[in-house]
Amino acid sequence: MQLMHVNEERLWDSLQAMARFGATPAGGVTRLALSNEDRQARDLFCEWLRAAGLDVRVDDVGNIFGWREGAEPHLPPVLLGSHLDSVPSGGKYDGALGTLAALEVVRVFAEADIHLRRTIGAVAFTAEEGARFEPSILGPSVITGRFTVDHVYSRPDVRTGVLFGHELARIGYKGDIRGRSPRPRAFLELHIEQGPQLDAERLQIGVVEGIVGVKWFEIHFRGEATHAGTPPMATRRDALHGAARFICDVRRLADTLGGTALATCGRLRVEPDVINVVPGVAVLGLDIRHADTAELERYTDTVRVLIQQVADNEHLGFSYEAVQSLPATRFDETLVGLVEKAARTGGLRHKRMVGGIGHDSLWMARFCPTAMIFVPCRSGKSHCEDEDISPEDAAAGADVLATVALELAQS
Amino acid sequence: MQLMHVNEERLWDSLQAMARFGATPAGGVTRLALSNEDRQARDLFCEWLRAAGLDVRVDDVGNIFGWREGAEPHLPPVLLGSHLDSVPSGGKYDGALGTLAALEVVRVFAEADIHLRRTIGAVAFTAEEGARFEPSILGPSVITGRFTVDHVYSRPDVRTGVLFGHELARIGYKGDIRGRSPRPRAFLELHIEQGPQLDAERLQIGVVEGIVGVKWFEIHFRGEATHAGTPPMATRRDALHGAARFICDVRRLADTLGGTALATCGRLRVEPDVINVVPGVAVLGLDIRHADTAELERYTDTVRVLIQQVADNEHLGFSYEAVQSLPATRFDETLVGLVEKAARTGGLRHKRMVGGIGHDSLWMARFCPTAMIFVPCRSGKSHCEDEDISPEDAAAGADVLATVALELAQS
Repeated sequence: MQLMHVNEERLWDSLQAMARFGATPAGGVTRLALSNEDRQARDLFCEWLRAAGLDVRVDDVGNIFGWREGAEPHLPPVLLGSHLDSVPSGGKYDGALGTLAALEVVRVFAEADIHLRRTIGAVAFTAEEGARFEPSILGPSVITGRFTVDHVYSRPDVRTGVLFGHELARIGYKGDIRGRSPRPRAFLELHIEQGPQLDAERLQIGVVEGIVGVKWFEIHFRGEATHAGTPPMATRRDALHGAARFICDVRRLADTLGGTALATCGRLRVEPDVINVVPGVAVLGLDIRHADTAELERYTDTVRVLIQQVADNEHLGFSYEAVQSLPATRFDETLVGLVEKAARTGGLRHKRMVGGIGHDSLWMARFCPTAMIFVPCRSGKSHCEDEDISPEDAAAGADVLATVALELAQS
Repeated sequence: MQLMHVNEERLWDSLQAMARFGATPAGGVTRLALSNEDRQARDLFCEWLRAAGLDVRVDDVGNIFGWREGAEPHLPPVLLGSHLDSVPSGGKYDGALGTLAALEVVRVFAEADIHLRRTIGAVAFTAEEGARFEPSILGPSVITGRFTVDHVYSRPDVRTGVLFGHELARIGYKGDIRGRSPRPRAFLELHIEQGPQLDAERLQIGVVEGIVGVKWFEIHFRGEATHAGTPPMATRRDALHGAARFICDVRRLADTLGGTALATCGRLRVEPDVINVVPGVAVLGLDIRHADTAELERYTDTVRVLIQQVADNEHLGFSYEAVQSLPATRFDETLVGLVEKAARTGGLRHKRMVGGIGHDSLWMARFCPTAMIFVPCRSGKSHCEDEDISPEDAAAGADVLATVALELAQS
């Protein structure tokens, strides 16, 4: 194995050209799924795919594929890609890097006139972010059978209520089922880390072994709303005080577990939410993550005990509901090994790591052998206009992508 | 001194008759200040004042006085009363008890043909609750010079924006400045405790020595909003975790201080308030109370240290603003002594205590010698439809009110 090299300047120019669609004054992008800005981005991507001599197909959920036929077209293809949509006031590289690096890899193969055994494709998946239509990662969800296409068509815009299917047709990207990808030999996704580790450790490549499992809970504590001026402290049943104790306890638990255990209380609502009334109700949103599915289950059991303990100690009623549960994803070890080998072969500073966030690969991994390559983003910032990467790191990631893709396409 | 006795049945009937205005299906009342229900309550109160032979006057802020002239009308009068407005879905007795007990006392004096040295009056103050027009206790605020009447007229309804002055005129209770009370010899207010102490200790009378001082703070903690899936726990700057630690710390502080120290975090807002985003901002409303003004200042200093410590430990930015500050109120010791003597004389189970909530007396105490009498409410419940008292306790409170009023009116 030898590290392939993409055209760093062309990749960077593509990223900057794509970033014009939905560009914000502060240097980010707002390119919500199926918006006019998304259409512009798709149009340019298709133009580039065609210019690279690829066969462009759009499937029924709007995923765009550009295929370069291999010598043995009956073999399962190798697929590379990511997404082009963004969150509001998001960054230029989340999704776009993986999509345009896939294009760049195919461009390089075409330019170098490399004849591959397998068909290779570059894909831009539809609606990864979940910022306009919920939940996230809708494009791969249809391919992998998580949702029917009709279910996805009926998802409403979270703000205006307009339907996904209507918007997909409006922007001209409602393809048909014949545009869907066959089950690939492998799916590879290059992505910015969206976390601080690689940048802090001055590494160039993250060899992603998997994505953490995630559970979301909505937890209700119920006490008694009373006037702040009368009940002695000892007699109070303060739902917010219970929630506060739980927030501290679950933080301590995650600190104690260490490793990949994470805990976040991101959402909190208090009733009646009046400065001089002891809160009678507190509703808390909890997100816990762990790279190991069995550990995540044990972690969840301990969280349940904490909720119960706090409620008992504070004389509160409680209930909780699991609002989302995704098991941990382990990527295909052969592919992960190839990514690691490519990075090592190329003399790139790298480490194995576990991704903390959902990506298109999360669902693709349930469909075919999948792996991801991370590159650093400055200070770990993402989903914001400050999101930034270097041209060298972008190219290094694309080099690894090209190298692994070549290996797989010839095997 | 001998305990006077009011007509328990008439007092109770008056309370129930008044409770028809704004009655809710669950047995409470919604009688917002200057609403149509408030007008009905005022009309009946005026009718009763006139039937008792009193001289009815309405001042420029809508306070209603019924005066019975004493033998020496140039002497400062004795004033008894409370308010008739309620919070939404409030109780039948908060305010109404003190207002109708004042009427009952004057009725008893008239019936018994007791000739008093001083003029005596029963008052229904305007807009005590602050539920429709903010802040609370507007009626006494004009009398005592806290606010100009024009300032009060320009207060908007917190929901509809319609002005106090417009509503006061609309319901026909915009009197004039000549209706204002002269500075009284004393003001006395009977009120339900709105707390659990008397009920829990099976006492009949609370001899109220004063009202706690209150400070409200709005505290901002500022961290960094990041995705719940990436930053390791140790690197997070979680504004909600800071707020949670503070909520626990300030609760512990109040428990440690004991006595009349209270602390309530009733309001909390988190940004961006998304389940999988580490909160970047938490805004907390804090209410602290203490019966001693100097202690309250020391308490406040400690709270400031706690805010700073939490912010330092959690690497958060912070700021806070004092949004309200009321020094502790000490009632007139002579009057407090008379209330205690009346309760003791009558063989009523009583104790000295400090009120935890603002009342009309809070501002009247800045105008003339003032005292309050508390009677128990069941389980301490108030500002809710479950608010309840017994006819016997209501009458016992009115007996003490009558006894002290007689003593003062003859002195």
